[in-house]
Amino acid sequence: MALTPWEQTAATKRQSVLAAIPEKWRIKGPIPSPTEQRDVTGPYIQQFLSPREIEITETDAVGITERTTTGQWTAVEVTEAFCHRAALAHQLVNCLHEIFFDAALETARVLDDHYTKTGKPLGPLHGLPVSLKDQFHVKGVETTMGYVGWINTFQGKTDDPRYLTHESELVKELRAAGAVLYCKTSVPMTLMSGETMNNIITYTHNPKNRLLSSGGSSGGEGALIALRGSPAGFGTDIGGSIRVPASFNGLYGIRPSVGRMPYEGAANSGEGQNTVLSVVGPLSSSARGLVLLFKTVLAAKPWLGDPGVLEIPWRDEIVEETRKLVQGQPEGLAFGIFYDDGLVKPQPPVERAMRIAAETIKSLGHKLIDWQPPSHQTAASIANRAYNLDGGADVLQNFALSNETIHTSVVIDTSGSPQKTALEIAALNVEKREYQKRYLDYWNSTAQVTGTGRPVDAVICPVAPHAACIPGKYATIGYTAFINVLDYTSVVVPVTCADRGVDVLGTEGREYFGELDRRTEGEYDADVFDGAPAGIQLFGRRLQEEKILVLAEYLGEKIRKASA
Amino acid sequence: MALTPWEQTAATKRQSVLAAIPEKWRIKGPIPSPTEQRDVTGPYIQQFLSPREIEITETDAVGITERTTTGQWTAVEVTEAFCHRAALAHQLVNCLHEIFFDAALETARVLDDHYTKTGKPLGPLHGLPVSLKDQFHVKGVETTMGYVGWINTFQGKTDDPRYLTHESELVKELRAAGAVLYCKTSVPMTLMSGETMNNIITYTHNPKNRLLSSGGSSGGEGALIALRGSPAGFGTDIGGSIRVPASFNGLYGIRPSVGRMPYEGAANSGEGQNTVLSVVGPLSSSARGLVLLFKTVLAAKPWLGDPGVLEIPWRDEIVEETRKLVQGQPEGLAFGIFYDDGLVKPQPPVERAMRIAAETIKSLGHKLIDWQPPSHQTAASIANRAYNLDGGADVLQNFALSNETIHTSVVIDTSGSPQKTALEIAALNVEKREYQKRYLDYWNSTAQVTGTGRPVDAVICPVAPHAACIPGKYATIGYTAFINVLDYTSVVVPVTCADRGVDVLGTEGREYFGELDRRTEGEYDADVFDGAPAGIQLFGRRLQEEKILVLAEYLGEKIRKASA
Repeated sequence: MALTPWEQTAATKRQSVLAAIPEKWRIKGPIPSPTEQRDVTGPYIQQFLSPREIEITETDAVGITERTTTGQWTAVEVTEAFCHRAALAHQLVNCLHEIFFDAALETARVLDDHYTKTGKPLGPLHGLPVSLKDQFHVKGVETTMGYVGWINTFQGKTDDPRYLTHESELVKELRAAGAVLYCKTSVPMTLMSGETMNNIITYTHNPKNRLLSSGGSSGGEGALIALRGSPAGFGTDIGGSIRVPASFNGLYGIRPSVGRMPYEGAANSGEGQNTVLSVVGPLSSSARGLVLLFKTVLAAKPWLGDPGVLEIPWRDEIVEETRKLVQGQPEGLAFGIFYDDGLVKPQPPVERAMRIAAETIKSLGHKLIDWQPPSHQTAASIANRAYNLDGGADVLQNFALSNETIHTSVVIDTSGSPQKTALEIAALNVEKREYQKRYLDYWNSTAQVTGTGRPVDAVICPVAPHAACIPGKYATIGYTAFINVLDYTSVVVPVTCADRGVDVLGTEGREYFGELDRRTEGEYDADVFDGAPAGIQLFGRRLQEEKILVLAEYLGEKIRKASA
Repeated sequence: MALTPWEQTAATKRQSVLAAIPEKWRIKGPIPSPTEQRDVTGPYIQQFLSPREIEITETDAVGITERTTTGQWTAVEVTEAFCHRAALAHQLVNCLHEIFFDAALETARVLDDHYTKTGKPLGPLHGLPVSLKDQFHVKGVETTMGYVGWINTFQGKTDDPRYLTHESELVKELRAAGAVLYCKTSVPMTLMSGETMNNIITYTHNPKNRLLSSGGSSGGEGALIALRGSPAGFGTDIGGSIRVPASFNGLYGIRPSVGRMPYEGAANSGEGQNTVLSVVGPLSSSARGLVLLFKTVLAAKPWLGDPGVLEIPWRDEIVEETRKLVQGQPEGLAFGIFYDDGLVKPQPPVERAMRIAAETIKSLGHKLIDWQPPSHQTAASIANRAYNLDGGADVLQNFALSNETIHTSVVIDTSGSPQKTALEIAALNVEKREYQKRYLDYWNSTAQVTGTGRPVDAVICPVAPHAACIPGKYATIGYTAFINVLDYTSVVVPVTCADRGVDVLGTEGREYFGELDRRTEGEYDADVFDGAPAGIQLFGRRLQEEKILVLAEYLGEKIRKASA
């Protein structure tokens, strides 16, 4: 059957991405099917790499910069190793939209020259490869954001002078800090999905379990970093799009509050929707990797390049205060916790991840209190209405550029619903503010029960009801979107992986919250999920990034040690 | 002719406000007409006051708290003096919506008891009377916000349990700091006007020149503080509503960036309009009075009571840095300046105020550069469209509650235009962000021309084309609304008063920018404007409150000394 024009365009683009992989890095022979070789991380991908490449790529972002900023490792060697591993990753799970290894190596050579001449690094990220979700514009390469209609255009516009020339503010700041940019990672069409699929690269699978999804919408980032094809990268999050892939891939990821990381000059869906905003944040294999990227971007004073960024530098004093609390000075920490949202009970691997986190907190002597906030279903409803204010007009316009088919896992209503009016939108904004106020009051009220004299320091909860998810079966954004409505800071901490021998459903029946709850339980299969990572969220109030990052590093480390 | 029902309701309310003034404080005999006695500040109002009352009420907010927090003055004595003077002010210029002197005196007695018992003040505002624009809810009194339809309701809702019981977050924080609340000040119907008029208290005249307006929408605050019926109070600003009354009344006033002062639990117009936001800020007779209120509110951690407030405490380090710059370390300051916006040339008193400010800056050895930013007309257009997104539906609903007549100086389109749709609103939000980006880039670019190695430290410009204004003749919000679109920090510094002997139009014709420019010049009359105050704006980037407050205090002091 002949391809339609959009299928042809997509196929050509898909081939061009593969063609950008040097011959020497192409996997020879067939790749085993997911049923034959579910997990392609670790030993599987290592078979294609030299010991030196493995050493470099399995060092975290902080470890790498410790070596590249002191001349122990060259930028070129590090860059080549990550380019090689990213190339393999893409061949295994379809996680890249753009490959620009030549430009990366040129950057690396310039950095090495700089170091040779001056004896100093260019900046704190000197020689660190950093991956970018395909919303950020990088000169010399396209941004398709998963739309076939954006191929060969600037955000769907032909003859726009910014095509192949424009760079997002974040990109400029990363370059100035010495980062090496080398690839852009896959996203779902519209960005509005808990999975990553589009008509260009098709589907991004989970490297730990290729039967499952890598999550979305920053699913390419999640998959690439899980395979150590990147030490750290930047995603975006409007309903869970950083946190879901972080959790599904065993990584750390932060959804900061609006205004801390620069979004200026990046592509987006639903531009100008101002009720629930998308934010930029890093994902990394280590908590300290998040801190490195976050601090470095703030050190660039992003508020001078992006009018949406708040002039709040990295606050070392909050780091110090939090470290004292961690050390039990004066009275230790108090955490809120909820295991389910009253709508969908998490499947066994997620439930176990939560129990591990709770036991770790208790064993460290910190307090744990039952979190009973204003209904998260209200928040999910606000979020869903915010995403759909324009009746899908924005995404339908972009689909219409190519007439491509729309994937069913897109959560935007594309049935042609009417746009909301100014008064309806204003009422939603008021509803959001009132919800935020009730939640804040609840948060403050916990000072009465924590025993520390303070409200809870943070709250832990699931990221999704499932560890990764079966393609097409992403259950709900109810565990993540409330954070976006509240504009709170949330960091995902990796905890465990699904284990078919342990994570089995109880044999006794239980009361279901409703149909979604029943269906979600029914979709659990201990065999299918085996190996899928499960993380938790650790969240704090608005603009609490420094505190929550410190707590995430602490808790993640303790969980890791407890599991070791 | 019989009164209509709404006229009757408004008259009853108007009488009840007057009736709340104790008999002993009522002005006996007729008040002279504005043509007989234009200026009712200073000696005119002093005739009704004792020397001790004059001493107290003509001390600024900082001077008062220095005495009330150390037991030199009692809260009761201070409160009584301001209640008396506020009562006189209202009788002279119609500046109050609510009078609650009994409650204030009760508060003052409690504060005095506290001081007697503990030897300590309750907080930094111990015993300081603070006036509030009639958007803030105070228990025991109404909030009409100038709508007849809100009389005997909570924001137009009958049987709402919050009626007479609810308090805004700011009100709670002020009480906790020891402030004494005693009156709420007049606003224009809809809040959307550069003058202050409504069908309840009619028109708030300018105390320095009762032929003219006190400005709007915080016009009651401006008039009351000009008459020293209040040392300091809080207004709100979405297009100039703090700055215009500050300038028209010879006061300091700050329009902070969104998120520094708490708006939670206050009434508003166009609730949920999220494109250009109204903000809360203080007005005061002194720059240090602004600082006192601003710092005190931040010390209350308003982000714990208002989800819209950013967790940015008062930043002493910025104060210190700025003071060093003021002292010429290392290279002094650089100011941008523009005398007109290319649309309307200011009338002679405003032009002279600008020249005084410019000469003062130059004489102090600081740099002054010609400000040529992205067009402010673009910003004014964005602001106007933001205010009218709902086609006037919000204000029309509130007018419909009583069927009251709509004053012609309301700047909202009430002709029944259609509401904007989600996509149109999104496009406006994008247009705003792009404008903010261009402006920020321009700001940064001035580092090339200031000679200080930095961009300009602040910019000075007019507040309006006129010093105060003839009722019904408010010319344009073009000098103020761009600040709201940019979300920049702007402080009004009082400079001079119109002088019929000096501020005369040139006899030679000039080229006009357009019809509005020609009309505005034509409306100038040196005799009519004589005595009207004229201030300037001093503005900085977003969230630069500490820096701009320091510069405003410095510049205001130097201007005052130069004029003395």
